[in-house]
Amino acid sequence: MAEFDFWYSIGSTYSFLTISRLDEWCAENNASVNWRPFNVRTVMTVQQNVPFAGKPVKSAYMWRDIERRAAKYHIHASLPAPYPISDLQLANQVALLGMSEGWGKSFTQTLYRLWFEDGVEAGSEAALTEALHRTQQDPRLVLARARAADMEQALVEQTETAVKLGVFGAPSFVVQNEVFWGDDRLDDALSWARVGHVM
Amino acid sequence: MAEFDFWYSIGSTYSFLTISRLDEWCAENNASVNWRPFNVRTVMTVQQNVPFAGKPVKSAYMWRDIERRAAKYHIHASLPAPYPISDLQLANQVALLGMSEGWGKSFTQTLYRLWFEDGVEAGSEAALTEALHRTQQDPRLVLARARAADMEQALVEQTETAVKLGVFGAPSFVVQNEVFWGDDRLDDALSWARVGHVM
Repeated sequence: MAEFDFWYSIGSTYSFLTISRLDEWCAENNASVNWRPFNVRTVMTVQQNVPFAGKPVKSAYMWRDIERRAAKYHIHASLPAPYPISDLQLANQVALLGMSEGWGKSFTQTLYRLWFEDGVEAGSEAALTEALHRTQQDPRLVLARARAADMEQALVEQTETAVKLGVFGAPSFVVQNEVFWGDDRLDDALSWARVGHVM
Repeated sequence: MAEFDFWYSIGSTYSFLTISRLDEWCAENNASVNWRPFNVRTVMTVQQNVPFAGKPVKSAYMWRDIERRAAKYHIHASLPAPYPISDLQLANQVALLGMSEGWGKSFTQTLYRLWFEDGVEAGSEAALTEALHRTQQDPRLVLARARAADMEQALVEQTETAVKLGVFGAPSFVVQNEVFWGDDRLDDALSWARVGHVM
């Protein structure tokens, strides 16, 4: 079975495509993918990588591109979704906490559906609360734990790990030491995991 | 036969992949693609789109990504090629002049081979001269004509047309009013030309 890491940030628009299709894709391709939340905003700030802010033409293209590709993958979406999100850090700390307890993937998928189908901004307390409810978690308890210093530090460490691997954007797939950036590189990552080159 | 436009700029790194594989791809897919040089640098400057300058991690990734995809398409390359190129405008004015006389595509392919295989910076007079020689054109005459005010204006107008269509980067494919950005969207453009959606 092919195995690799999926680095994503809640707040990343193109990650929606991967998050929505990855389970089915893994089943079809006999692949096992490890979901790894990190804080892409801090990485982009440090690296002066500003993909869409102040770029209306590129932003409009991004939404149209996501719309076309969502249709390709039979993923429902109401676009554009609210963007950028207000608070990326807490959402990803919740996701990271959830990963250690087995509900992180379900939380992430639910939160993205709220964001991209219902238009609830994913960094908002309302979105986090609702997504946690739907994931059978107690929002009050989880949010308190996610806000604690140890979870803050844990996300910082995950982000540092991502940067050391060469990750600079989300979504990214890392296979051995190869970085593949973008939902559209998912099949390339699989190919690399299987045969060591892109087919 | 599927038909669409290929907007590119000499100076664009990812355009190398398209320029190198497009003839064979068209033959395999029964497609006819219209090569349209424009000045992506002026568009990016106006739109504050800075893809690689001052971004060493993203730049390193770009070269690695091109290397992997060139291997996928069996395209030879010695990477990284000199980048950014010094003068993008004259090279694209030469290409545009060549398009009106039937040698523009061959010139572009030859210039990219010089740039990506032999490491000759594509905006340099040396590269333009050698590429014109290999395309059976007189470099002195062509460069004089390409530098004239009417060719300067012609490239400006092509660039304005590209912008009106929603093109913001190179390479881009435009099918009816749909813009597809990136060599990795070539098959999507074909799909759109054939059936009106991305398959």
